[in-house]
Amino acid sequence: MKIPNFDDIIRAHELIGGIIHRTPVMTCSTINRMTGSELFFKCENLQKTGAFKFRGACNAVFSLTDEQATHGVGTHSSGNHAAALAFAASLRGIPAQIVMPSNSPDIKKKAVAGYGGIITFCEPTLESRETTLLHIAGQTGVEIIHPYNNTNVIAGQGTAAKELLELYPDLDIVMCPVGGGGLLSGTALSVKALIPDCRVIAAEPSGADDAYRSFKAGYLIPSIHPKTIADGLLTSLGELNFHIISRNVDDIITVSEESIIQGMQLIWERMKLIIEPSSAVPLAALLENKERFQNKRIGIILSGGNIDLQNLPF
Amino acid sequence: MKIPNFDDIIRAHELIGGIIHRTPVMTCSTINRMTGSELFFKCENLQKTGAFKFRGACNAVFSLTDEQATHGVGTHSSGNHAAALAFAASLRGIPAQIVMPSNSPDIKKKAVAGYGGIITFCEPTLESRETTLLHIAGQTGVEIIHPYNNTNVIAGQGTAAKELLELYPDLDIVMCPVGGGGLLSGTALSVKALIPDCRVIAAEPSGADDAYRSFKAGYLIPSIHPKTIADGLLTSLGELNFHIISRNVDDIITVSEESIIQGMQLIWERMKLIIEPSSAVPLAALLENKERFQNKRIGIILSGGNIDLQNLPF
Repeated sequence: MKIPNFDDIIRAHELIGGIIHRTPVMTCSTINRMTGSELFFKCENLQKTGAFKFRGACNAVFSLTDEQATHGVGTHSSGNHAAALAFAASLRGIPAQIVMPSNSPDIKKKAVAGYGGIITFCEPTLESRETTLLHIAGQTGVEIIHPYNNTNVIAGQGTAAKELLELYPDLDIVMCPVGGGGLLSGTALSVKALIPDCRVIAAEPSGADDAYRSFKAGYLIPSIHPKTIADGLLTSLGELNFHIISRNVDDIITVSEESIIQGMQLIWERMKLIIEPSSAVPLAALLENKERFQNKRIGIILSGGNIDLQNLPF
Repeated sequence: MKIPNFDDIIRAHELIGGIIHRTPVMTCSTINRMTGSELFFKCENLQKTGAFKFRGACNAVFSLTDEQATHGVGTHSSGNHAAALAFAASLRGIPAQIVMPSNSPDIKKKAVAGYGGIITFCEPTLESRETTLLHIAGQTGVEIIHPYNNTNVIAGQGTAAKELLELYPDLDIVMCPVGGGGLLSGTALSVKALIPDCRVIAAEPSGADDAYRSFKAGYLIPSIHPKTIADGLLTSLGELNFHIISRNVDDIITVSEESIIQGMQLIWERMKLIIEPSSAVPLAALLENKERFQNKRIGIILSGGNIDLQNLPF
């Protein structure tokens, strides 16, 4: 796999710019007052399919040659990447084979099916997911699009920070959550290319802190039994992602579950934005470390808004 | 009271443009497919204080001469106007006297207090609200700012449609909900000045249909015992508002409670936007009248997002 650079992000933006939403950047004086910093929220919860994942999936799907695209694309995912890939494939008019664990929430099965994804259910283990996908790929010839450990996916995710910095070129810090590292690696590439002095700081739930531990150790340490309400961040960091993150990210901060819920509730109540818990992780880091971020101008990527409205944590 | 015109809206926009959020306009391909029309949602739920009301309150407060502003402003309101006026007054550094019925929800009392409003509680009757406010005005000398039957308030509310049409000058129709008529009268003035061919259609809950009945009859018919989940639309149309609406609005459509809840849930789930029930009333009208609006390009003003998250109708 090629290590992506900012030129790939520029190309991705040219390719997908007419398909994705150029999401708004919102501010909130109350939350600024509470944190003592000036925050600029890039609203990827308002992106198509409800998450930044659509950028990467779109870039991956539309970067395929016609020959590569002939048999469609495939992935295993129980989350936002599955819906994003299914929708991107439908826009190109090719099939998307999605392997989902049989215990995936109904709401996620419905989302993938609603976007036209062809679902195959498997046992809820990583092994079963991978075996099932490889079996389907062997039968159908689909191109497998990994959710984050993929050059074009990373380049696509980097377009969110690019848009943010084009509007606000004087930020001190850009923050985003980290799970598999697709958003963080793309964000870091954009930020360091556009504003070398701007710091990139990721936030991670302390119950799923493999990126934090890998970053500090200098080598990849996978998650074992991660547990957090931020269900988008349960995955372990990818290799390509770790390579980019270890060279371009300034720090990773871990946060408590309580702060994630507090941050989420603040954004719902004060900003009127529906975000999923993963999106609240950077704000949680600010709430837990107010002195460190005093008077800074900080861009925050709100990663997604896909949440079961019947099952809110507040 | 002077009848406002589009020049007043231009002046209002110059006065408040640096204070208000220029709210984003969002689209949703799923809802477009469901309605058969192309919709452009102007997100006033993302406005400061969570509602378009901040535009009118801001214009009213900042239009006062220094002499008029000396003793502050006052109003009686249990809703979004109270919070908006309190916040606008705080930005000018003058007091806001807010008369609220003693049975107002805690969440609304807290919002007004949070924005620095000085609250006086009264009996939950219109008579008590008006008497109490007049008493306070007599004692303190505040300028009374009516929530909708006020020239500067109407001009302020008209800036939302002005922003929408500046981005999308080729709309066939602009829709918004109608309660007291502040938003609708301001919207109609902007639309008819900027795009005379564009139709202005309001939507109203059938359980609070005084605007519909007044519009059809040609004279003002106040509400008696209105009842709807769209609590922002319980008020009766104002005189100034009716004057403008009867001359500039093309139609008013009434909708059921079920459609309001369905529209609200769609916007929450598919657009990731927190809206209050009143905001969903125009989409409810589209869901109930699909054939009429087939293939039209329609701007919809989402009026606000202030709702008790513990008490959702779905």
